[in-house]
Amino acid sequence: MTRTTAEPFTLTCPIPLMDYPRVLMAHGSGGRMMQQLIEKMFYRAFDNPELLSGHDGVTLDTGGIEAGRVVFTTDSYVIRPLFFPGGDIGSLAVFGTVNDLAMCGAKPRYLSAGFILEEGLDMETLWRVVCSMRQAADRAEVKIVTGDTKVVEKGKGDGLYINTAGIGEMIHAVHLHPRSVKPGDKVIVSGDVGRHGMAVMAQREGLSFESDLASDAAPLNHCVMTLLDAGLDIHCLRDITRGGLAAVLCEIAQSAAVQIDIDQQQIPINDTVSGACELLGLNPLYVACEGRFVAFVAPAAVEQVLEIITSFDQGKPVSIGEVTAGEAGLVTMKTIIGGQRILDMPSGELLPRIC
Amino acid sequence: MTRTTAEPFTLTCPIPLMDYPRVLMAHGSGGRMMQQLIEKMFYRAFDNPELLSGHDGVTLDTGGIEAGRVVFTTDSYVIRPLFFPGGDIGSLAVFGTVNDLAMCGAKPRYLSAGFILEEGLDMETLWRVVCSMRQAADRAEVKIVTGDTKVVEKGKGDGLYINTAGIGEMIHAVHLHPRSVKPGDKVIVSGDVGRHGMAVMAQREGLSFESDLASDAAPLNHCVMTLLDAGLDIHCLRDITRGGLAAVLCEIAQSAAVQIDIDQQQIPINDTVSGACELLGLNPLYVACEGRFVAFVAPAAVEQVLEIITSFDQGKPVSIGEVTAGEAGLVTMKTIIGGQRILDMPSGELLPRIC
Repeated sequence: MTRTTAEPFTLTCPIPLMDYPRVLMAHGSGGRMMQQLIEKMFYRAFDNPELLSGHDGVTLDTGGIEAGRVVFTTDSYVIRPLFFPGGDIGSLAVFGTVNDLAMCGAKPRYLSAGFILEEGLDMETLWRVVCSMRQAADRAEVKIVTGDTKVVEKGKGDGLYINTAGIGEMIHAVHLHPRSVKPGDKVIVSGDVGRHGMAVMAQREGLSFESDLASDAAPLNHCVMTLLDAGLDIHCLRDITRGGLAAVLCEIAQSAAVQIDIDQQQIPINDTVSGACELLGLNPLYVACEGRFVAFVAPAAVEQVLEIITSFDQGKPVSIGEVTAGEAGLVTMKTIIGGQRILDMPSGELLPRIC
Repeated sequence: MTRTTAEPFTLTCPIPLMDYPRVLMAHGSGGRMMQQLIEKMFYRAFDNPELLSGHDGVTLDTGGIEAGRVVFTTDSYVIRPLFFPGGDIGSLAVFGTVNDLAMCGAKPRYLSAGFILEEGLDMETLWRVVCSMRQAADRAEVKIVTGDTKVVEKGKGDGLYINTAGIGEMIHAVHLHPRSVKPGDKVIVSGDVGRHGMAVMAQREGLSFESDLASDAAPLNHCVMTLLDAGLDIHCLRDITRGGLAAVLCEIAQSAAVQIDIDQQQIPINDTVSGACELLGLNPLYVACEGRFVAFVAPAAVEQVLEIITSFDQGKPVSIGEVTAGEAGLVTMKTIIGGQRILDMPSGELLPRIC
């Protein structure tokens, strides 16, 4: 079991063909310039028969998807800066939506891509993002099959926003859901937390750290599919994004009406992340990841779950605690110094536009 | 056959419950405030079991959709102003995506909704838009089943952008596509053109006309389903949006590699629209609609197609011309004064952010 690595997608920039080095309002007009942008940029990068069918929507080859097994999700991406160590808005827009499908237990199949471009955006920047999306889609084994482009005036956007919606296929008869979480379940985190948020913050604020800090952004679907293929007794999966590990645990404790007790000592946090958080006065448990998830599993399945996640080399998974009948919605943490504290949902906004 | 009219959806504004009269960055944080926004605003307005299942994605009841019959599409909406005579960004975001599915011959079933909110947006404005989306979804008979909310800093957006992606079901074994258009086909336009664009322009520029000018924005799916239920020999449908009637005809003439000849005299244009266009130096054939479509149909089907469209009371349909083998990609128009001119794809941008 090794991580799927697709051939990297490389393509020279079509800008010499594009006549315009920057995005103009007319690129969103429905006319010739929009047609040119779509054909020379999007069709070329995403290149697949469904997309090239070129109609208002696309009929999907969902032959083989059993009735009632289609999963649907959407996310918009407004991260800044557009490029950061370990990724960019394009790869994030693919992985984020792919991961949402995977967390439902679905095999991601198709994505849409809606671009909101700010007038004046460099075509080369757009091309880099679009190529990154294609590369990310290849890695996650999904296709970008339909899309849309809008242009807003300078000062009414921030370079580029992307929405992706995704369609996945439920292959296994599982019901992964917060409400399936039960007392006795073990809580597994798939790797160290907080790296994405801190990598973006460092880039944004121009901070440099002793060692390189790269985002953990990654597609989780191959790992999740392997877990499900193995038929393990898993009750819920949730990717750790906005609000960090703490928000995920609080939300699930509420939905499932259970108590969750975790042990701070067990939570894997990279030293550079810890240091950066200390410097900025942040708690890493509230900082977003983009390639980590929490799994709620029956005790008997813990060992195998840890083994499979480890084999994907996307982080070192650890069991950090367990679910009890205790008080519905409560999340407690045994601290490193031996005390106990309550973990709350974050209420303010410490790290805006992290995804 | 009458137009479907759903019970209007009314709900009092939950602002007293929301603590904050305006959108803050924290409403996009993944924390408590975002949770509150989702539960008190989106869950309340869109209210359906799929949405309320509250996971990263939603498993759809697509039982009964035959394998290989799922249609997928997306559009972002950046129109300004947010409210205009005959609609708003919310109803547009529903009808626009519903219409894209309908143009493929699909019965629209499910929508996603991705919101990009600008910090400082009035909660009441958001609520009006969200209620309008629900009302539009009821009218189109689709459900908004999954969503996402992001917040960007003041000055990095323009109040509110919405992306909707849509999933539809191919019920009929038809292949409506530009490449299915054949010489001999008649070109039918479903009603008067240019009303949406001019209504929005008038609102934006503070122009007032002698008579009220309202957008034609409307869901076209019920009309299209009735056309397909009747088993008529229809080859292609296309809604008239950005770029207007001219752009649609040029695009289809190119895709199908046919010539299209139309008769200006036959093209229905509302008098107020004509007057406003003249005033602003615009050609109504390049102005967007949001509730009109072009149908390419076999001559034998023309009469029944006109009859069915008429019965929906969404405009008076007219046959405006025909397809010939002539020159691939060419669109010619017999002018009112008896000459002939070529219709080109629009190249610049006359009416930005019309959808």
